[in-house]
Amino acid sequence: MYTKEVAVKADIRTEKERIAQETRQGLRERGVYGINVIGAPGAGKTSCLLRLVGGLPGLRCAVIEGDIQSDIDTERLRAAGVRAVQINTGGECHLDGIQIRDVLGRIPLDETDLLFIENIGNLVCPAESNIGEETKLLVVTVTEGADKPYKYPLAFEKAGAVLLNKADLLPYVDFDMAYFLRGVRALNPGAPVFELSAKTGRGFREACAWIEALL
Amino acid sequence: MYTKEVAVKADIRTEKERIAQETRQGLRERGVYGINVIGAPGAGKTSCLLRLVGGLPGLRCAVIEGDIQSDIDTERLRAAGVRAVQINTGGECHLDGIQIRDVLGRIPLDETDLLFIENIGNLVCPAESNIGEETKLLVVTVTEGADKPYKYPLAFEKAGAVLLNKADLLPYVDFDMAYFLRGVRALNPGAPVFELSAKTGRGFREACAWIEALL
Repeated sequence: MYTKEVAVKADIRTEKERIAQETRQGLRERGVYGINVIGAPGAGKTSCLLRLVGGLPGLRCAVIEGDIQSDIDTERLRAAGVRAVQINTGGECHLDGIQIRDVLGRIPLDETDLLFIENIGNLVCPAESNIGEETKLLVVTVTEGADKPYKYPLAFEKAGAVLLNKADLLPYVDFDMAYFLRGVRALNPGAPVFELSAKTGRGFREACAWIEALL
Repeated sequence: MYTKEVAVKADIRTEKERIAQETRQGLRERGVYGINVIGAPGAGKTSCLLRLVGGLPGLRCAVIEGDIQSDIDTERLRAAGVRAVQINTGGECHLDGIQIRDVLGRIPLDETDLLFIENIGNLVCPAESNIGEETKLLVVTVTEGADKPYKYPLAFEKAGAVLLNKADLLPYVDFDMAYFLRGVRALNPGAPVFELSAKTGRGFREACAWIEALL
């Protein structure tokens, strides 16, 4: 039975990857750069997106907002003037290439330079697949603890950059920065780590400059 | 293809649930009460377990520690004198009934009253299945934000109790307690919410008393 499960899963995965590849190609042809934003629940993905979009006035940004349920984050983005469309997975723990393809028609791609895709809050499953993006942005926090690279290595391996959020709380938590950075470096020597705070805005200038240089 | 995937998944799930039911029955017959501890990465599940075990000196506790990779948490528990065995899922985002059954032989069940199972750090997938436990303990934090019940409803629906951890950080974060509690109440009116801090120990007396009353 497990062999069968694995085989069917592999078929589905191949199909989803093919669709994601098509999405990536289609976005490229239209001059849209896709960034898949992943992180645990409550890491501050939406708050970081608000800061990033605000810090990139020269780029036309849009957001696909993934949630199991609710449109709280999409409403937050729209209230701030950000173009955002919602995907509710109704239980699924990560977005997939099919869901992204199916929602692209609702975004004015010809007026978009940068497409952020905020994945479901989950440090495990969203790391496993490409859903049409050029790179992944991993949002983690100082309150989650410094051992995250050691416990959730794939998310760090797959990240184009790491946003270490909630740095305003550093004085109040025991966060071993050297241990954290050592873990990130071992898994992904090339990925920059931005120490920042979506609450205060600290550190976003550097993160925005890194994104601008991608395009 | 999707129908086939769903059918195979349903078969596997039924089999895992049957095994979990056997585990639960087997534990009951030996006088062991199983608690499945779920929560996002970095919520402080292990730190809470250390406080709970320390606050329940009259009960013989053991811990099954689930991680994708690493044995950091098991070593922490053992260093504190807690009997703990490790399951590494190697990528799987939640523990299942088969993994629990297969590891039970490594725990002296006849000398155990309370068996904590610390699931993978994930607020989505671990909520979906029973793996042999009598109840689930959900660990969330004030740093994750007050909207978690609205975004991850199943975890709250399935919880026997909610541990709201990192309450020592309440002065430094914007956490709307009334909104949080309203969300929890709507999903799960019967579950107590314990406001606590694994760092300072605050609130664990009440949580331990709730657990003692279960047995």
